[in-house]
Amino acid sequence: MSIAIHDPTLRDGNHAVSHTLSLEDIASYCRAVDGCGLSVVEVGHGNGLGASSLQLGLARYKDSEMLETARANLTHSRLGIHMIPGFARLSDIDTALQIGVDVLRIASHCTEASLTESYIEHARSKGAYVQGVLMMTHMASPETLLEEALKQQGYGANALVLMDSAGHFDPDSTREKIGLLVRELAIPVGFHGHNNLGLAVANSLAAAQAGATIIDGCMRGFGAGAGNTQLEVLCAVLERYKFETGVKVFDLCRAVESLEDFAPVRTPTVVKTANLISGLYGVCSGFEKHVARAAAEFRVEPRKIYEELARCNAVAGQEDLIISVASRLSQPVVA
Amino acid sequence: MSIAIHDPTLRDGNHAVSHTLSLEDIASYCRAVDGCGLSVVEVGHGNGLGASSLQLGLARYKDSEMLETARANLTHSRLGIHMIPGFARLSDIDTALQIGVDVLRIASHCTEASLTESYIEHARSKGAYVQGVLMMTHMASPETLLEEALKQQGYGANALVLMDSAGHFDPDSTREKIGLLVRELAIPVGFHGHNNLGLAVANSLAAAQAGATIIDGCMRGFGAGAGNTQLEVLCAVLERYKFETGVKVFDLCRAVESLEDFAPVRTPTVVKTANLISGLYGVCSGFEKHVARAAAEFRVEPRKIYEELARCNAVAGQEDLIISVASRLSQPVVA
Repeated sequence: MSIAIHDPTLRDGNHAVSHTLSLEDIASYCRAVDGCGLSVVEVGHGNGLGASSLQLGLARYKDSEMLETARANLTHSRLGIHMIPGFARLSDIDTALQIGVDVLRIASHCTEASLTESYIEHARSKGAYVQGVLMMTHMASPETLLEEALKQQGYGANALVLMDSAGHFDPDSTREKIGLLVRELAIPVGFHGHNNLGLAVANSLAAAQAGATIIDGCMRGFGAGAGNTQLEVLCAVLERYKFETGVKVFDLCRAVESLEDFAPVRTPTVVKTANLISGLYGVCSGFEKHVARAAAEFRVEPRKIYEELARCNAVAGQEDLIISVASRLSQPVVA
Repeated sequence: MSIAIHDPTLRDGNHAVSHTLSLEDIASYCRAVDGCGLSVVEVGHGNGLGASSLQLGLARYKDSEMLETARANLTHSRLGIHMIPGFARLSDIDTALQIGVDVLRIASHCTEASLTESYIEHARSKGAYVQGVLMMTHMASPETLLEEALKQQGYGANALVLMDSAGHFDPDSTREKIGLLVRELAIPVGFHGHNNLGLAVANSLAAAQAGATIIDGCMRGFGAGAGNTQLEVLCAVLERYKFETGVKVFDLCRAVESLEDFAPVRTPTVVKTANLISGLYGVCSGFEKHVARAAAEFRVEPRKIYEELARCNAVAGQEDLIISVASRLSQPVVA
């Protein structure tokens, strides 16, 4: 079975450094991995096109600057972006296509696929290759995910990606959800994991065994929260299980080693207890730095904030809720 | 199902810092985790009692100093040691028991259980609780492991632990090997994982599902090479799968957070490419620092050293082979 490896190191990894990846980081990463056989290199603000804001975090560079830099340094791998309608606008699609982006991921919360309709249709009308994405997919049953995925397929998506945005999946739930979509959809299915429970590689392997043919991995696991599935490890494990990724694992290892000054090497991605707790409660990985700041400011245990955010079913875009939750928890309860 | 969590942070982790853990590190770690419900805290040189040497690496402190420090700071968890006959001597057992060690792990390479006979028998004759340990168990078939395990059971071992010393296992091979031992042995079976392929948590879960009732984990994954199964993540995942570990996960998380100055927090454990390659080739995790030194000294790519060590079936105790391999590889081949 063939698996296309999709690499969002330069997008999801931007969460890990509060969206401050430099243009030099982007250029050197693209040059280092371009010959290694990765299908797609994805670039941008952690929350995708148009997401730079006070609410989500300000990016150091404009989307167009990041994409043009990557475009100039990629010859073999395709260039990808992530976008969430609401943060992104329709016109961002046109800009991305003008710069030469090859793969558009258009994403919504797992129960809100209808928000992607006009975006997927617009991109497809321009002849673009589009992957529909459902995020925070631990929050919906396999059947609900299938309904939402069928909508994105109906809008014209060329493939469908399930994201375990909170790192809450385990191999059993991964197999169940991916397996149902693979059986029922007419388009390829992908999986994007986070490592909060130390299971990202195992979940990705389970996804591949259940028929997923697009799998995400980030160099050294660089990504929001506990980080993503570790790219070079993922490729090696898939190869061992006889999947054909087209990735030259030892070349990729050399590329990783050549990037000594790159952020994930300087500040390694580990599963900190806050990430573990976030994963257990099923809270969006992108909240990590916001929760840490609010916990320090209001002197509240991060665990209590995560617990309350889970109770509120908070999702990306509701970062202001983190502050109000922390503020409320810091008040003495009046009996 | 009940699982006893065995924590070798202060023993396997000593590999990660070239056996330089301080007595303060040992004392503060023991105090921090003592109330968290861990079954055993294991302490010592990375290769166990008596292993401090030029060949394996000199420890900063004597075994007795490390063990007495731990003993003085553990009330709830039992105190454990690891020993490999040849590095350790019979008299080390007596010393350990005099200091008050509760759990003796007596280990051999996976096909050399007979080397543990007199040690296990001596320890059992003193009334000690003994776990037989087989190391580098990816190098033998399930049937061979069973033969060797039956020997250690015959010598009187109270339990039998399989170590994936090279981090080469995957969930399928873990299930197969652990499952056979659980079915055929009369004593409890344990599993000790390394994370070279990013699968340590998944393998440990597979071991528990196959009937293992002793599982090893190290705080933040601190251990040789890519590190061990991450302790706090392991406990959370086992709890989610309804295993009873007796570990209070949030207390353990707080203990981890309280150890800001402890080595694994200062120098995080990540899967570096050398660790990934080592795991793919099935080379002992304890070789990492020796290989890195030899690669630098002789200007040879670490991958080539790992490849050659795998071809030689090198095991712990053959660290001098690393230098001769590196030296040989650095010579131009004469046609």
